[in-house]
Amino acid sequence: MNLRARLLNIQAGGQNIAILGETDASSLGVHSSDRVKITFKDKSIVAIVNVAVNFARGSVGLYEETSRKLEIRNEDEAEVEAATLPESLSYIHAKIRNERLRENEIEAIIKDVVERHLSGIELSSFLTALYIYGLSMDEIESLSKAMVETGRTLSLNKKPILDKHSIGGIPGDKTSILVVPIIAAAGFTIPKTSSRAVTSPAGTADRVESLCPVNLSVEEMREVVEKTNGCLVWGGALELAPADDLFIQIEYPLAIDPMLLPSIMSKKKAIGATHVVLDIPTGRGAKMKTIGDANALAADFIDLGKRLGMNVQCGITFGEQPLGSAVGPALEAREALSAIIGNGPADLREKATSLAGMLLEMVGKSNGKQLAEELLKSGIAERKLREIIEAQGGDPNVKPEDISIGDKKGSVVADKDGIVLWMSNEDIAKIAKEAGAPKDKGAGLLLKAKLGDTVKKGQVLLEIFAERSPKLESALKLADRLQPIGLSKKPGDRMLIEKIPTVAVHKKTFILER
Amino acid sequence: MNLRARLLNIQAGGQNIAILGETDASSLGVHSSDRVKITFKDKSIVAIVNVAVNFARGSVGLYEETSRKLEIRNEDEAEVEAATLPESLSYIHAKIRNERLRENEIEAIIKDVVERHLSGIELSSFLTALYIYGLSMDEIESLSKAMVETGRTLSLNKKPILDKHSIGGIPGDKTSILVVPIIAAAGFTIPKTSSRAVTSPAGTADRVESLCPVNLSVEEMREVVEKTNGCLVWGGALELAPADDLFIQIEYPLAIDPMLLPSIMSKKKAIGATHVVLDIPTGRGAKMKTIGDANALAADFIDLGKRLGMNVQCGITFGEQPLGSAVGPALEAREALSAIIGNGPADLREKATSLAGMLLEMVGKSNGKQLAEELLKSGIAERKLREIIEAQGGDPNVKPEDISIGDKKGSVVADKDGIVLWMSNEDIAKIAKEAGAPKDKGAGLLLKAKLGDTVKKGQVLLEIFAERSPKLESALKLADRLQPIGLSKKPGDRMLIEKIPTVAVHKKTFILER
Repeated sequence: MNLRARLLNIQAGGQNIAILGETDASSLGVHSSDRVKITFKDKSIVAIVNVAVNFARGSVGLYEETSRKLEIRNEDEAEVEAATLPESLSYIHAKIRNERLRENEIEAIIKDVVERHLSGIELSSFLTALYIYGLSMDEIESLSKAMVETGRTLSLNKKPILDKHSIGGIPGDKTSILVVPIIAAAGFTIPKTSSRAVTSPAGTADRVESLCPVNLSVEEMREVVEKTNGCLVWGGALELAPADDLFIQIEYPLAIDPMLLPSIMSKKKAIGATHVVLDIPTGRGAKMKTIGDANALAADFIDLGKRLGMNVQCGITFGEQPLGSAVGPALEAREALSAIIGNGPADLREKATSLAGMLLEMVGKSNGKQLAEELLKSGIAERKLREIIEAQGGDPNVKPEDISIGDKKGSVVADKDGIVLWMSNEDIAKIAKEAGAPKDKGAGLLLKAKLGDTVKKGQVLLEIFAERSPKLESALKLADRLQPIGLSKKPGDRMLIEKIPTVAVHKKTFILER
Repeated sequence: MNLRARLLNIQAGGQNIAILGETDASSLGVHSSDRVKITFKDKSIVAIVNVAVNFARGSVGLYEETSRKLEIRNEDEAEVEAATLPESLSYIHAKIRNERLRENEIEAIIKDVVERHLSGIELSSFLTALYIYGLSMDEIESLSKAMVETGRTLSLNKKPILDKHSIGGIPGDKTSILVVPIIAAAGFTIPKTSSRAVTSPAGTADRVESLCPVNLSVEEMREVVEKTNGCLVWGGALELAPADDLFIQIEYPLAIDPMLLPSIMSKKKAIGATHVVLDIPTGRGAKMKTIGDANALAADFIDLGKRLGMNVQCGITFGEQPLGSAVGPALEAREALSAIIGNGPADLREKATSLAGMLLEMVGKSNGKQLAEELLKSGIAERKLREIIEAQGGDPNVKPEDISIGDKKGSVVADKDGIVLWMSNEDIAKIAKEAGAPKDKGAGLLLKAKLGDTVKKGQVLLEIFAERSPKLESALKLADRLQPIGLSKKPGDRMLIEKIPTVAVHKKTFILER
């Protein structure tokens, strides 16, 4: 059937979508979600049908992606015919019915994800089924490999290549900004990519962006690493595992994260990592709640590493409270820079040198943690970070106080004397976001007390920073309502952690950063 | 934030979608799938964010649904602000985590489905989770009620109101075209709604459309029923349970049908049914494969009926082969009309009078089947069908041969002598669809042999009809490849039903008609 192209001059998020009126769809015998083959001159593509009410008969609506691929202009006539469904869709159906998928089936799915042959509805069902049934290690391996194969890779002529990654989940985790220069200063290669915040107040890419540009291409990244041994770049623009970027778009509204392992590990494989340390923050407010859960996840990461030809070790880290004091892109960049200069919070330095030490021992150094501490104390790591900042296009002489933070400031004070008994990661993240983080880089908060600290009534517990007064006001109000820090004279004094009303509350924190 | 409206003049399938460029989305702090509130003058709506690459900064793209609700024109300035996610989404998240949903939660979901506040991605995940976990009877009841409450209802000042429905699954099932006039001729009210084909070669609405118009409004339907006691109309335009129409759009590409019970029963409730007979075709090629499965489903239908205040009985019917001989809209209409005149196939008449008999006994008649047979034999049911046809706007004097069928015709013959041992419903449906059904009304096939029949080599097994020669050719080719009818001299002669190659085939028939 010949139909006139009606160009919509707008992108459909990458998907090939063909809009048809009801009559034309019926003549073609297709429903919404069926596929049609559209041919114009020597080009043809398969598109997902979207039947629109009252859409002009005799025309086919095309989004930019589709019209560009076909090189078709408005009013050009294209041939449209019913096409078969992609074979990968039948594998998705199999997964919905709880069948184990084989490698070639997973390859077909991932290829069709990247080529945008599967709709959001289909991917949503696939990811939901994966979340509910869980994935076998064979499936995880196949997914990881297929995600690497369908993306770009970084090939450096060096070995070993080290990497560090956190599964995410606690606010203020700026460890990578210390680990990368320590490892690079020790003479090892560490081409670190990070994500931006999705559900959190700051991702590492957001933090680093307060120090230097992070939107580098694979070629620029290679140059930086060849010059300095390391980098701290945003992974999102590199297309290392483009399937994952599409999965995240679907997982976000569903608040599920079934692709955690293949997502992280495919990107490590894509940059050629040979030795990886995975940080698994564990605690009440973290992704992993118990040491048992963390152990199980660690075993999976290590097994997957072996299958992908990478040496993986995991660090289970204390995740009951934010790391350091600062939460929010600019505040965290300041804190990380202070820490590498020698003034930052002890927990951040301890965690960074512990994880860096693990990496160093994996590649044959003895006393890794001690070596990492020396590189930090001596200022060698600081010089390395400045080298990296400069190579990425930032100011190598940047001082913590140069990093601008929100000038609207307010405080939350203790309403009684006491010891800090618990702290809600979730509530602290919410308050920082309410203040404007991550989109307002200077927004966030500073914790003035941490677990175990003794505070007096009236003493400041946290300082909130915002770029705009209304944001500050609402963050302060939220802090007042949430009471994110639990104070008591003795642990036994306050036994009730949370009240469950007669009707349980379903809302649950969801952390997509990975 | 004020953004200029950019109208897309195209419908988004009912959803409120707002397209934002990356910069504006980031300033608002929203990602794709987040919600924004759009205000123009005194109107405001909540829309689902779709972040588009390269979309003009300072503007918001609006589909027709959204611009119409806002009464906004191109270039008008609207206020756009971040909005919270609908509460129903947190209930969907709860279901993904396998929590049982309460009545108020299900009401919130269904309300938001109908008001288009939930995206296809979110609905897909919800339906997948329902499919995988199954639904409790409380959830099914709540879904059914909420689907009735959010739709239109038919209120007739009559009692009892009878209805009959098949869960679908076998080709050629034109029973309703006989049951409705039998019941109406017996003096009872039966306002029957049917669906069009989604995955099958013909739905009852498609069949009836070869006799008279079926696209009636609720008001027109009421008039027909008040005049004749019955009707045979398409349910799709009536908005009896609009949520279900939206669910079907999602279930179709996923090949799952978790809403079978609420979907059917909400529509029975919406037309005010008090007594319902449900036909559950059972057999190898039907939706229900075993009598055990059929019994379990029947128990659920009966229980749900009680909860919704309807008297429900189920008929488990022989589903190993198509009903009658004809498959395809016009061919089936011909056959149904012949049967009511007195010449149709025995199995069709037997099934129709059995189910009609059950209904008649439910409302107090004794010897229901006998009464149904008498109404059929005497021509009273035929006169009633012609009354209904006339009231719906068709020709009351229509003869079977008036119904035009495809003039391209071909035959499949037996390649040996034998007895018909088995017949594949699925393959027969595929062949009829390949011939052009349901979009080509005259396309389809006639079975010239049925289970147990003895045939000679060279004898015709099925005749294929098409409106277009290429369709006929490909249907004949498909029939040749599929061999949908199994012949043998004695049952023991052909023991192998299907070969499974080393790699299992995942493809599975999916029947969405309900």
